[in-house]
Amino acid sequence: MKVLIIGGAGMIGRKLSERLARDGTLGGREISALTMYDVVAPTAPKGAKFAVKTATGDLPAAGETDKLVIEKPDVIFHLAAIVSGEAELEFDKGYRINMQAMQNLLESVRHAYANDARKPRVVFTSSVAVFGAPFPDKIGDDFHTTPLTSYGTQKAIGELLLSDYTRKGMLDGVGIRLPTICVRPGTPNKAASGFFSNICREPLAGKEAVLPVSDDVMHWHASPRAAVGFLLHAATIDGDKVGARRNLSMPGLAVTVGQQLAALRKIGGEKVVARIRREPDPFIQKIVAGWPSNFDPKRAVSLGFKADSSFEEIVRIHVEDELGGAIA
Amino acid sequence: MKVLIIGGAGMIGRKLSERLARDGTLGGREISALTMYDVVAPTAPKGAKFAVKTATGDLPAAGETDKLVIEKPDVIFHLAAIVSGEAELEFDKGYRINMQAMQNLLESVRHAYANDARKPRVVFTSSVAVFGAPFPDKIGDDFHTTPLTSYGTQKAIGELLLSDYTRKGMLDGVGIRLPTICVRPGTPNKAASGFFSNICREPLAGKEAVLPVSDDVMHWHASPRAAVGFLLHAATIDGDKVGARRNLSMPGLAVTVGQQLAALRKIGGEKVVARIRREPDPFIQKIVAGWPSNFDPKRAVSLGFKADSSFEEIVRIHVEDELGGAIA
Repeated sequence: MKVLIIGGAGMIGRKLSERLARDGTLGGREISALTMYDVVAPTAPKGAKFAVKTATGDLPAAGETDKLVIEKPDVIFHLAAIVSGEAELEFDKGYRINMQAMQNLLESVRHAYANDARKPRVVFTSSVAVFGAPFPDKIGDDFHTTPLTSYGTQKAIGELLLSDYTRKGMLDGVGIRLPTICVRPGTPNKAASGFFSNICREPLAGKEAVLPVSDDVMHWHASPRAAVGFLLHAATIDGDKVGARRNLSMPGLAVTVGQQLAALRKIGGEKVVARIRREPDPFIQKIVAGWPSNFDPKRAVSLGFKADSSFEEIVRIHVEDELGGAIA
Repeated sequence: MKVLIIGGAGMIGRKLSERLARDGTLGGREISALTMYDVVAPTAPKGAKFAVKTATGDLPAAGETDKLVIEKPDVIFHLAAIVSGEAELEFDKGYRINMQAMQNLLESVRHAYANDARKPRVVFTSSVAVFGAPFPDKIGDDFHTTPLTSYGTQKAIGELLLSDYTRKGMLDGVGIRLPTICVRPGTPNKAASGFFSNICREPLAGKEAVLPVSDDVMHWHASPRAAVGFLLHAATIDGDKVGARRNLSMPGLAVTVGQQLAALRKIGGEKVVARIRREPDPFIQKIVAGWPSNFDPKRAVSLGFKADSSFEEIVRIHVEDELGGAIA
């Protein structure tokens, strides 16, 4: 089977490609070829037994998505996006990449596979940003999508398009709303949600981190490993079981900052937690207060999507996958 | 104040223009000019004390929406759409008119009023078709939009765009999800929902009508007069009171076919009801079963949107407005 990852240079795209290289199969079928595409050059995973091609380009440019599906991949992961903060500052750029390119991709697939009985599975990464405050205590599967950012709006539109093209039999889409990914590897960034990862990643590596909110702030987390698991499951799940509602809130862990700290202490000891400096930041506190913090993702759970078991597991995954097991 | 009606040749557009001509004002402000635009030539209302211009064109064509907002209307009613059945059969046409033209309009407004402190109110007619079965007994204000038609998908996308452009301060949008309009004047059409109006309009005019479903089928109705009332209220309501969630399910009447017949009998007598021929149609029964039939539109009601008081009132409105008071 042929696999295409759009957005293959991002953290999730890279981890997904590494997992595919390790497994060699997807849903029990042997992978024959993988194409990784992004605006910057993706890195091919090491040790793949199948051919890996990397490509770069401007996804929403005319004809670009046509070129991407010319070899008719069986599974298309569409992970490419302008992130929340940038989509808010760059209105046109956000719509161009997050909405126009999505529509172009669906159109390209529709026409490329028009005469094929078997349509490709298109896995679309949506986001909990499709929801906007005020929220119930737990956001259920039938809560409306009233986003409060352009990014959330664009993702919600992508979900609607994915459902309609699927309903019309033009392709076979599954959209997954990812929780905040934690612990995000790499360097600290200025995203308002960055601290949830920073307070884990930096102290575990012997560095200081800043905590701008109080211990009782709750948030909805999934590890990078769990996120890759969601993607693989979305790529292989029986579409009939998903039914007409093609977009699913993924399971996650509703964890307070206090519980994050307790898990860090358990795994890294007091010396690790001591590297976190409290610096209350009303600006970040206000943004975080507008985010959804807890879900009741019954459908995804019943369909077999699996969250991490605890925040300790999330921290352990980071130590194993990013630090080679060593805590500073 | 200047008013623009896009979709001015349709039944609702025409009735809206007649009401504006009668009132002469909108939200207490004198109307100085009205432009009615559609793909076919709209009919200017009689007796207007303000200038009325009619225009035709292809709304999604490049530059078309720019031309429409050149005179900077204060209120824009966007009623134009490819209807449900046609949007389902003509996929590209539906997306072009119902989605692309909506996006073009919002972009044109954004740029035309970019340097103006006061942004125009854009009233967008959405539809209960944004919802898809299965439904709760009553659809509440926070029920998710999972449409099962391309038309519903396009309307749901229009809602999301309207909210985002409003949130960014580019315009001042209010979207209203209209119930099925009953009694729809004119001639019987082949829409699956047509019989709800046919069984009233035809017998009251001395003609036969076919009833394809059983008496217990419930549906969500509003008269054309109530619909015009929703539009005027949406045009003048305080945007701050609407808040971030710019799209509202309108109030309506949840009425069974049996209750429709009882109201007809009360107003027109047995001779009118006797003109209805029962011809069960499993095809139409199945379509109707997938439609939402009852709502709990708390927000719209608390914001002052008013439904008809009874189905008898709906029938009386038809007799007054369309039959000059005379029942055949």
